[in-house]
Amino acid sequence: MQYTREELVKIEKELSTQYKHFVKANLNLDLSRGKPATSQLDLSNELLDKLNSYLSDSGIDARNYGGLEGLPECRKLFAGLLDLDTEQIIIGGNSSLNMMYDNMARLCLFGTRGEKPWKMYEHEGKRVKFLCPVPGYDRHFAICEKFGIEMVSVPLTGNGPEMNIVEKLVAEDSTVKGMWCVPLHSNPQGVCYSDETVNRLASMKTAAKDFSIFWDNAYAIHHIYEEVSLRNVFDAAKEVGNENRIYYFFSTSKVSFPGAGVALIASGLDNIAEIRETMSVQTLGYDKINQLRHVQKFETAQAVLDHMKLHAKDLEPKFSLTLHKLEAELKECGFASWSSPRGGYFISLYTFPGCAKDVFKLAEQVGVKLTKVGATFPYGQDPEDSNIRIAPSYPSLKELDIAMDVLCLCVKLATVSKLLNRT
Amino acid sequence: MQYTREELVKIEKELSTQYKHFVKANLNLDLSRGKPATSQLDLSNELLDKLNSYLSDSGIDARNYGGLEGLPECRKLFAGLLDLDTEQIIIGGNSSLNMMYDNMARLCLFGTRGEKPWKMYEHEGKRVKFLCPVPGYDRHFAICEKFGIEMVSVPLTGNGPEMNIVEKLVAEDSTVKGMWCVPLHSNPQGVCYSDETVNRLASMKTAAKDFSIFWDNAYAIHHIYEEVSLRNVFDAAKEVGNENRIYYFFSTSKVSFPGAGVALIASGLDNIAEIRETMSVQTLGYDKINQLRHVQKFETAQAVLDHMKLHAKDLEPKFSLTLHKLEAELKECGFASWSSPRGGYFISLYTFPGCAKDVFKLAEQVGVKLTKVGATFPYGQDPEDSNIRIAPSYPSLKELDIAMDVLCLCVKLATVSKLLNRT
Repeated sequence: MQYTREELVKIEKELSTQYKHFVKANLNLDLSRGKPATSQLDLSNELLDKLNSYLSDSGIDARNYGGLEGLPECRKLFAGLLDLDTEQIIIGGNSSLNMMYDNMARLCLFGTRGEKPWKMYEHEGKRVKFLCPVPGYDRHFAICEKFGIEMVSVPLTGNGPEMNIVEKLVAEDSTVKGMWCVPLHSNPQGVCYSDETVNRLASMKTAAKDFSIFWDNAYAIHHIYEEVSLRNVFDAAKEVGNENRIYYFFSTSKVSFPGAGVALIASGLDNIAEIRETMSVQTLGYDKINQLRHVQKFETAQAVLDHMKLHAKDLEPKFSLTLHKLEAELKECGFASWSSPRGGYFISLYTFPGCAKDVFKLAEQVGVKLTKVGATFPYGQDPEDSNIRIAPSYPSLKELDIAMDVLCLCVKLATVSKLLNRT
Repeated sequence: MQYTREELVKIEKELSTQYKHFVKANLNLDLSRGKPATSQLDLSNELLDKLNSYLSDSGIDARNYGGLEGLPECRKLFAGLLDLDTEQIIIGGNSSLNMMYDNMARLCLFGTRGEKPWKMYEHEGKRVKFLCPVPGYDRHFAICEKFGIEMVSVPLTGNGPEMNIVEKLVAEDSTVKGMWCVPLHSNPQGVCYSDETVNRLASMKTAAKDFSIFWDNAYAIHHIYEEVSLRNVFDAAKEVGNENRIYYFFSTSKVSFPGAGVALIASGLDNIAEIRETMSVQTLGYDKINQLRHVQKFETAQAVLDHMKLHAKDLEPKFSLTLHKLEAELKECGFASWSSPRGGYFISLYTFPGCAKDVFKLAEQVGVKLTKVGATFPYGQDPEDSNIRIAPSYPSLKELDIAMDVLCLCVKLATVSKLLNRT
């Protein structure tokens, strides 16, 4: 839609009046992090009940030392759930992020598949690079930054990363050692990788022998509107003998309890042997009682999937409200575009270039906390100053309703100000 | 005691007959690892009961993300128990070994207190060194080996490491970056550091600015025969401004459940800020529900200490039986000496030089598993082939009785064979 300057001045006045109303309201709302709501946590309260037995079905006493790879029953449960082989899974502690960090630390310190440790490149004046589909997950980027790994942004399309670019980069440069992928309901776009994308990632020729994909399938079973099927990356990789290219991560943080769930890593068997060797120095094993709790609560993969339907039921009204508000408030004026995820935890909003930081500030000033602008890009720099990640899960519907009113208003106000060259 | 060759031949014959008896018995006993017995695990079964509330006293929902340093209530509980400041404690996951490994990885990758990362020394053709009081804990040595850190053995006396040697080494060599200490009921000797030792460790002049003591107080409250008090290492360090020299580790692995307890690191506040910064990239936080379980079960430091008395009651007959057997079987012949620990999990046995491996083999052949000889020394090399670590906790009293008969017999048999020059 096109406005005359006169119209814009008038709209700005109206918006400012509305904004003043929110200033007085003393709000304290948070759309910034993908935290499950209390009502979602309640779905798993059975995990807090008395443990049926401290013995696993295979007779392991979960209360004592041992079992580096995790309880066999727990590995089996997740193998069934994620269509993986039991032997390729190691159950870790409470956090898949921690397993990603540990895996990166291991590769930097000790290397993999006979290649030299990634940390060694520094001393040759070189830097290891990782491809980062953007926008993406801030905590992935933070790991790269911490380890001094140079991040190379790759555009994310509706089918996954722009593969022509990816294939060229990995083929030409042997210091491109890896890539982040959130293949289902990506954070923050909600993108689901197509079969073709998965096949190309698994089979592409890479200059680095130790090229590694960090396959963070955080939202593997976190469908809301419809079940999306993802090509099994190991099936694709096995066809070309590339199973060890993939480090697959998953956790129950958004299935059972965030921070008190169970995380896992899966990979080719050579990698699993390497990881196991390092882990045997790092720990005597992770918390098997919590693994057993999860096995006893869920029992079968189907039970986990049924449980996820309850989560979807809780999340759906929040996503629908958010999308409805965006549609109602921002479609006509055309001041923003947004993603329409089928699952996951986020909706990705695009303002006009140069407006996102202003929106953030305006919202902050009336007590609505948004994800920091730029967080969805490497080094915290959104080159367009346009992307805002909306996390609708944590607030109540009532709070979300107000927060979205504020957000839409702030988008309009920032855009009009920009159009009037006021900022 | 001195024997003639004739006497030795006669003794050997008798011992061989006894040994054959055990060969037929088809034993399967294990004295190798410091695992609590099932009866000890039962002491903490309340932790498996329904959680009272998922809210901490300060109102934190333990089921959701957040709280990197751990629940305030949990930090406070351990501060009281270990005479530390709450602010200097970070609660981690289920394993203090994991926290030691992570801390070593952090120092190797990123360095500390403005000094360069320890991994950098490799590229100058230098090696970082750690002092290792011997005999010591095999898993400490494994961490050094994994990170390519050169281990320098230091003799352990009844009061702790031989401080004249330690002081000389750390003063002269700036690549001596650290030291392992198990200051109470050390593994495997049961040595408790004297106040003087603690003071000297805390205040000694070190060539390396980033010299760091890994203070593994694994057996801080694990007294069996008598309570031994240890000089607070931070009190000693504060007097000379060296709080950041100390990384203090503790866990409830042998208080509640091994592998399902709670671990912590404590240090000077500068270090805590550094650790926190790295942790904020590594994880969103550790399992607060398990922290809350421990807080709700124990409530007070005194309750933990009372609980440890129940462990002592379980362990005391096993330690007494072990010591009694050694006394009865090996004192008169003088073929071995051993430690008399006041707590902890181990008794350290010394055979005549060159006999320990033979004892291990003889015991193994009749189904009694001992800790691998050499495991208590860096690189798995006992220069005297003499030290055997006895872990009496896991077997039942009845099993221990037989296992100790076998062990004592094997010591005698190996010694007599050695004296007769048969091996």
